[in-house]
Amino acid sequence: MEVSKSIASWEVLEDREVFTAPPWIKLSRQRIRLPDGREIDDFHYIHLTDYTLVVAQVPDGRFIMERQYKHGVGRVSLTPPAGGIAAGEDPLRAAQRELLEETGYEADSWQHLGRFACNANYGCGNAHVFTCRDARKVAEPDSGDLEDMEIVLLTEEELRRAFHDGGIAALGAVAAVALALNDALRG
Amino acid sequence: MEVSKSIASWEVLEDREVFTAPPWIKLSRQRIRLPDGREIDDFHYIHLTDYTLVVAQVPDGRFIMERQYKHGVGRVSLTPPAGGIAAGEDPLRAAQRELLEETGYEADSWQHLGRFACNANYGCGNAHVFTCRDARKVAEPDSGDLEDMEIVLLTEEELRRAFHDGGIAALGAVAAVALALNDALRG
Repeated sequence: MEVSKSIASWEVLEDREVFTAPPWIKLSRQRIRLPDGREIDDFHYIHLTDYTLVVAQVPDGRFIMERQYKHGVGRVSLTPPAGGIAAGEDPLRAAQRELLEETGYEADSWQHLGRFACNANYGCGNAHVFTCRDARKVAEPDSGDLEDMEIVLLTEEELRRAFHDGGIAALGAVAAVALALNDALRG
Repeated sequence: MEVSKSIASWEVLEDREVFTAPPWIKLSRQRIRLPDGREIDDFHYIHLTDYTLVVAQVPDGRFIMERQYKHGVGRVSLTPPAGGIAAGEDPLRAAQRELLEETGYEADSWQHLGRFACNANYGCGNAHVFTCRDARKVAEPDSGDLEDMEIVLLTEEELRRAFHDGGIAALGAVAAVALALNDALRG
């Protein structure tokens, strides 16, 4: 790609907390200076907990997915194991912990597919996407989450089909699975 | 996939607005009844504007991408054309409007790859992902957005490379591009 244009960052002149629901949510109202000198008085930045998404495969190649009601989605759908990163916790450690807590599986070989801001305008925390292979069951699930869930092992074909019938309904889930199924993007 | 377990939705007993920045952001504090009868007093739901993401290709196959600073990301990165859906606007119409406004391109052949909740817990609006082919330039860009941007045409190889050097940094952008590059997921 030829880059021909210099693009400057925005400058935050002031950041004032306007809503908080600790430890989950914090909203700031920011005063911003744009590169052209204009000032914006009321740009809102939404701080949410960073989280991990884990696309895990068992030795026969099937994917460990969770069928659950998620309130942000408003219905039952499929999602890879996912969960918040505790303050100071290493994202890979958090991913391994969530996989074990939610599904009872462990794996040795992990790959980090990237860290992505959940909302390009407001922030909304970052999602860290991981894959792992040869996961094996070592314990019973014990997530402590509010959600009731069913753990399902899906073939790649079943996972692809889930895209087309709306079975994967959250943006993080679809990003993680689409990245994991796309070998060329795994590098 | 064999579904063996019945999973119930949560019931919203009360929904109280606790923060608003019209017309962009609204936060509700909800009282929830879980399927097992437990009640949660302070579940927060974040209402953000639904938006579209458009992965558009010109006749030679290159992808129309935007290089810009996005404040939620905190740095310059690549994103497909994207923008908010106006109240009552059809998502496809919004996608076509955003493509034209931001890039000056139009296309006839469109595909809807899905509608995804931006945050599985909090909502945060929905992202509608579209692709289109044979886009042709019919006007000069005139987005009216705060962001300064450069429009770049990237080959599939360049786009794939952008994943690996962190060039695509927002979750919606990565989901849209990963879906569009994955023929088997396009159906």
